[in-house]
Amino acid sequence: MHPQIHGVLETCIYVADLERAKQFYRDILGIQVHSELEGRHVFFKIGSSMLMAFIADESRRGKTLPPHGADGDIHLALKINKEDLDAWKEYLTKHDIDIESEYAWGDRGVSLYFRDPDGNLVELVNPEIWGL
Amino acid sequence: MHPQIHGVLETCIYVADLERAKQFYRDILGIQVHSELEGRHVFFKIGSSMLMAFIADESRRGKTLPPHGADGDIHLALKINKEDLDAWKEYLTKHDIDIESEYAWGDRGVSLYFRDPDGNLVELVNPEIWGL
Repeated sequence: MHPQIHGVLETCIYVADLERAKQFYRDILGIQVHSELEGRHVFFKIGSSMLMAFIADESRRGKTLPPHGADGDIHLALKINKEDLDAWKEYLTKHDIDIESEYAWGDRGVSLYFRDPDGNLVELVNPEIWGL
Repeated sequence: MHPQIHGVLETCIYVADLERAKQFYRDILGIQVHSELEGRHVFFKIGSSMLMAFIADESRRGKTLPPHGADGDIHLALKINKEDLDAWKEYLTKHDIDIESEYAWGDRGVSLYFRDPDGNLVELVNPEIWGL
């Protein structure tokens, strides 16, 4: 029998400045910091999974755990309730976050796209767009 | 009131060959393909979220949706049941997947680390390591 995978547990981004990443993900988006290691990473807990922000120059060293790291603008989507769309638009605008794109997936939902301070493409969207 | 984020909905990796990515994530890891666009992306459905593999040269063009893309080896962790660890070790070995590292988080669980065909660092681990 094939053993099973049940979900994505950890999603990673790579950032240049951990304090700046915390100011964005924790202070603006309201995501809980789980743990951090100065100069290397900050881990955020979101629902039943983890969002991890690494300094790529450090995670590429791979001491205890294998090396990893990427350059560029990674995309990630965060789950919101469909009825919170307008509240999020208002909230982001109030916090000077430029909404780069707003895209409607038929009548299933709407995505808001904006950038984190490192240029990663963050999306807020309701899970119904995927039938989830 | 601060609107809330409830989870990570989409996690992205960037690959050079979509067929090869499917052979790995679908045929070996047993993850369901949700949808695909030839030459651009393949989306996998895992539990209540999506894993997306993009050809970065295409996703960087950003036509309908904003551009994104990264180079390097991204890390992601996939959720397994604690009691399936040995079955996964046996299964990966049988499919010639080299386990680069096996790491025990005290008595909370064990991580298996290996590479996808693009060098992204895949981890299989039980959610109890995070208290989830």
